Amino acid sequence: MTNWFRLTKTARDSAARLGELVTPHGTVPTPIFMPVGSQATVKAVTAEHLKDIGIPLILSNTYHLYLRPGIEIIQKLGGLHHFMNWDRIILTDSGGFQIFSLARLQAINDEGVRFRSHIDGSEHFITPELAIQFQEVLGADVIMALDICPSLQDKAEKVEEATLRTHRWAERCLRVHSRIDQALFGIVQGGFVPELRRQSARYLVSLDFPGYAIGGLSLGEPKQSTQDMIDVTIPLLPENRPRYLMGVGSPEDILSGVSRGIDMFDSVLPTRVARNGSLFTARGRLNIRNAMWKEESAPIDPTCNCYTCRHFSAAYLHHLFRAEELLAYTLATIHNLHFMHDFMGKVRESIAEGGFGAFEESFLAGYQTTDEKVRVAQKQKWLEKWKQSEIDA
Amino acid sequence: MTNWFRLTKTARDSAARLGELVTPHGTVPTPIFMPVGSQATVKAVTAEHLKDIGIPLILSNTYHLYLRPGIEIIQKLGGLHHFMNWDRIILTDSGGFQIFSLARLQAINDEGVRFRSHIDGSEHFITPELAIQFQEVLGADVIMALDICPSLQDKAEKVEEATLRTHRWAERCLRVHSRIDQALFGIVQGGFVPELRRQSARYLVSLDFPGYAIGGLSLGEPKQSTQDMIDVTIPLLPENRPRYLMGVGSPEDILSGVSRGIDMFDSVLPTRVARNGSLFTARGRLNIRNAMWKEESAPIDPTCNCYTCRHFSAAYLHHLFRAEELLAYTLATIHNLHFMHDFMGKVRESIAEGGFGAFEESFLAGYQTTDEKVRVAQKQKWLEKWKQSEIDA
Repeated sequence: MTNWFRLTKTARDSAARLGELVTPHGTVPTPIFMPVGSQATVKAVTAEHLKDIGIPLILSNTYHLYLRPGIEIIQKLGGLHHFMNWDRIILTDSGGFQIFSLARLQAINDEGVRFRSHIDGSEHFITPELAIQFQEVLGADVIMALDICPSLQDKAEKVEEATLRTHRWAERCLRVHSRIDQALFGIVQGGFVPELRRQSARYLVSLDFPGYAIGGLSLGEPKQSTQDMIDVTIPLLPENRPRYLMGVGSPEDILSGVSRGIDMFDSVLPTRVARNGSLFTARGRLNIRNAMWKEESAPIDPTCNCYTCRHFSAAYLHHLFRAEELLAYTLATIHNLHFMHDFMGKVRESIAEGGFGAFEESFLAGYQTTDEKVRVAQKQKWLEKWKQSEIDA
Repeated sequence: MTNWFRLTKTARDSAARLGELVTPHGTVPTPIFMPVGSQATVKAVTAEHLKDIGIPLILSNTYHLYLRPGIEIIQKLGGLHHFMNWDRIILTDSGGFQIFSLARLQAINDEGVRFRSHIDGSEHFITPELAIQFQEVLGADVIMALDICPSLQDKAEKVEEATLRTHRWAERCLRVHSRIDQALFGIVQGGFVPELRRQSARYLVSLDFPGYAIGGLSLGEPKQSTQDMIDVTIPLLPENRPRYLMGVGSPEDILSGVSRGIDMFDSVLPTRVARNGSLFTARGRLNIRNAMWKEESAPIDPTCNCYTCRHFSAAYLHHLFRAEELLAYTLATIHNLHFMHDFMGKVRESIAEGGFGAFEESFLAGYQTTDEKVRVAQKQKWLEKWKQSEIDA
């Protein structure tokens, strides 16, 4: 089997590590954050914007592409890379998570899963074999096994059943996968049951995947639960294979994941919150829609070197958001993706220099939600007014 | 007075002419089409996209910028060029047209006009002096006098009153305008009354503006009326000053205007229809949302050299529109603006080569609304089915 991953350094102050993911569309340093382009585009930006930031790898989604425009159409158009004009690395998720979170689930048995489309209610049946076939047609560099993602409410028995079925499906995925230019990753499940997570990791490792994902940990559960599940899983995964924590992408959670030995992350968070005007800075997230930015001639983050911060004042961005101009979403997305890209570079640099722990500590000390401060200040003001009116009355 | 315009050639087969508009932010060849960026951004594209197309000049709007973010804020931010990061030419409309079309008009007298904002209903009073003051602060290269735009329903008496008031306002605008790095254009009004249009042209010319606009001709009136009003106006305007037909921007109407001696055009049409999926091609406008494009691997227009057509299939664009992805609006806007830019280049080339009449004829012969053809075909199909069901029954 091709070697898809090179471990280049392991930190001494934590389980953090440096590596390289090697694919037909390029080699990328890890730990890495992957922006999400579910529907064959990262929302609001062009491929050139992504390249200008330096992004080597994006994630797209089999569930979305299967429903619209349809796998056959992308096949006719020459595969996903060509369809969306992205000549760098693509990872496709199998659709497992979306079927269980976005679609209306109809029935699930050993053969596969029946669901209704969230777009038009049409009924579909997907098997592990189909999920691989679709992903082979899409042609991403890294593809994922079809998994079952239990919900937070599921009882232990149901979680166990789902986990064991995920294992059988992983084996079937591996069996039918034939493209040697694609790495097929297995997905560790097991809900929040440590023993099931361990069992899942052991089983998947026995199948010898070129990479391992940890799934089912971005459901809104307490952070401690996420960390516990990572901690029971990681020691059972082989050192020389990449580890991908699915759906996790805030700077805080990435630091937590990196310190536990995770190599890859993805999340819609940076792009989704950008479109709501929530922008990442080294001092925390700020909301550009807030009136405090109305006359600010400095960029959102004067230390930032992104296209948005190099060319535009916070006041201009504030104006675009207030005026609901489409350019607002583009400029905000560019900024947040640049922040994440830059942040991951600093994470890797700190590991290389043996100072990841210190970096994590100093980053978290400086990072707080500016919005929070603003809200507190506003509330304070409101309370004072209210007190005043009581005195007046 | 600075020379803002050089007439370089006049056609022999029509009143079409070639010229150059000379401004502090560059010299542009005329006839020219100006994309509209009402709120300090051309919707859905960045300045780099516009520059990549080759666009030298955009239009922005005093009415919109006055209401949001406010003239003072743009002043604090260093003027409109700096605020929106556009170092090429800007023309600002005075806001006259918007006050009479978009805002809720409250009262109008010789002093000025009272209206309510279309955004929040707040009341405002604008005078010709204020309109100039605002535009001096914004700092566009070409600015417009404050005019009154009668509606199609207005009686002759009211149109005359508005026209005469527009003249008095034009004089006041000229009197207070002090920035010598800005060209202030007068606007010929007069509704659809030929004698009033003539009177308006003569009066404004007597004031000696560096350029003349023809206003009030994009209200949905019959095309013949527009052409008649241009025809009575043009002979009265000096040859060596630019002529700007406001709010007109379809390829057909531009050809008609050019043949009558117009040098400058602006319209939201190419960008607005782009966001609805209506795309300009040499064969007419097509709607990319139509199912006929679902599997089309060729670009929208295989002869087009724009960013969108060089990189993406019609099927991809169709997918983006169906999936309501923001990138759809960006790619469609780039294409339509590139089409207009390219089209104006061909218009100028044909005038230079003495073949404008032939170009106009051949362009119009090839240009038809593809949508129209599709609708006809669909209707035909539907009629056949209907006939069939009658036979079946």
